[in-house]
Amino acid sequence: MLTSLLALAVQAATAAPLPSDPVESDWRDIPAEELLVMTLAGERQIVIRLAPRYAPVHVANIRRLAAAGWWDAASVYRVHDNYVVQWGDPTEKKPLPEGVIARPPAEYDWPAFDAVTRLTRTDPYSTATGHSADGWPLATNGQVAWLPHCYAMVGVARDLAPSTGSGGDLYAVIGHGPRHLDRNIAIVGRVLEGIEHLSALPRGTEGGLGLYKETSQHVPFVRGRLASDLPESVRPRFQYRAADNVRFAAWIKARENRQPPFFNLPSGGVDICNVMPPVRRAP
Amino acid sequence: MLTSLLALAVQAATAAPLPSDPVESDWRDIPAEELLVMTLAGERQIVIRLAPRYAPVHVANIRRLAAAGWWDAASVYRVHDNYVVQWGDPTEKKPLPEGVIARPPAEYDWPAFDAVTRLTRTDPYSTATGHSADGWPLATNGQVAWLPHCYAMVGVARDLAPSTGSGGDLYAVIGHGPRHLDRNIAIVGRVLEGIEHLSALPRGTEGGLGLYKETSQHVPFVRGRLASDLPESVRPRFQYRAADNVRFAAWIKARENRQPPFFNLPSGGVDICNVMPPVRRAP
Repeated sequence: MLTSLLALAVQAATAAPLPSDPVESDWRDIPAEELLVMTLAGERQIVIRLAPRYAPVHVANIRRLAAAGWWDAASVYRVHDNYVVQWGDPTEKKPLPEGVIARPPAEYDWPAFDAVTRLTRTDPYSTATGHSADGWPLATNGQVAWLPHCYAMVGVARDLAPSTGSGGDLYAVIGHGPRHLDRNIAIVGRVLEGIEHLSALPRGTEGGLGLYKETSQHVPFVRGRLASDLPESVRPRFQYRAADNVRFAAWIKARENRQPPFFNLPSGGVDICNVMPPVRRAP
Repeated sequence: MLTSLLALAVQAATAAPLPSDPVESDWRDIPAEELLVMTLAGERQIVIRLAPRYAPVHVANIRRLAAAGWWDAASVYRVHDNYVVQWGDPTEKKPLPEGVIARPPAEYDWPAFDAVTRLTRTDPYSTATGHSADGWPLATNGQVAWLPHCYAMVGVARDLAPSTGSGGDLYAVIGHGPRHLDRNIAIVGRVLEGIEHLSALPRGTEGGLGLYKETSQHVPFVRGRLASDLPESVRPRFQYRAADNVRFAAWIKARENRQPPFFNLPSGGVDICNVMPPVRRAP
């Protein structure tokens, strides 16, 4: 089993180029202002790409929070299996830094489904799904569009509606996409690297909500800064794979129709959460 | 945030009964012969319900393996983030116990979509989904039916096709349902309790496959037995919620249309992996 899995990985890595392989110019830089670099105690680094185009007020808040050092003192206080990891201020008492808007508008969707791809089949939560030109998964109901709750997507924790949350508490999805949250909460980003530092944390048990029972269980962050505010020497640089080309279309087709030697039977379709836009460290 | 979440949980627990609440007789015993009780070092217990109706030869193998002590010496050797945890014999050298069929038939689907529920909308991998009378999620393409790869479902690791795997190595899903594996691998069960002992394990890094690089990282099981082979005093007893009644239908409807005070906007549909058949410890 191990031997053949590893053989398959080696074969994939050394095979001739496929029509679904990207060319070098398909990789586009992600602006440093869109990267939030969070570090848990023990130098476990998590890099989140923010989505200012889709949730501008919430993302402006998160940037202000970063600049004010809010994330340097945040903690993970909730790890709910097959659902979310949540972090921020578990005391619920810290005043928001100046300039942070306490009650942002409900940035849950927007009018344009401007995807440059469209998956062959849809899912129970939308009438179409695809990829944006700027490297995000999108869903639509034919009227409005939104970022779907897929694994590693980051949302803004909030109180009961009509609260939308300030951005001072965030969560990342660590289970099967809880798509019923789509359009009910603001999605503001995606974990590009280090999701395993969140998804492998011990689960909380309190309230059936995955909250840590004791504050001693909280997992503290030691730093949280925009990449653009870090010295160039330690600044992580990421790229997304552009979706507006025949190679990306071939990649989707390949994902929708997996082939031998491992697969016998292609599905003919794929869930948007299983074809998330590829990203990589800039070479 | 925490305060209102906890308040909501208390409210839910103390509210008047809903049409979607089960009555006591909706809970049906799961036979002890269907429960595989696996214990990781440190007394971390995982209870798996086997699916003999759907994969009889593979499940017969797994039972023989349990009786022969195979699982007492198994190890977790692969933890692939947003995909699977896999365990069994990482040496690939142990002989299979007598009576275990090395090459079972491809028990990937069967002719009857005998679901007693049907979800309002479908997903990219099937034309309909629902719940069986005996407490399993089901998917169909209109011709055959199968158990879908949802979070915590258990499958049989295999080599390249046409291998189907003996059952000596198993995996559990710990991420967004990799439904492209449906009908390409035998699903043999579901983790009913203790999935967090698998999903929170440190991720492996080898081969891009989540394999542990060093054998010292392997996480050993100390026991694995059918509940029916355990003394009654320590035998875990589980029940599933019967799906063939109006209360279950109301529960699905509620899941498809989440309501205030937390939700603003119902989806109108739900993914089968987000309405897995409820189970509980027998009272």
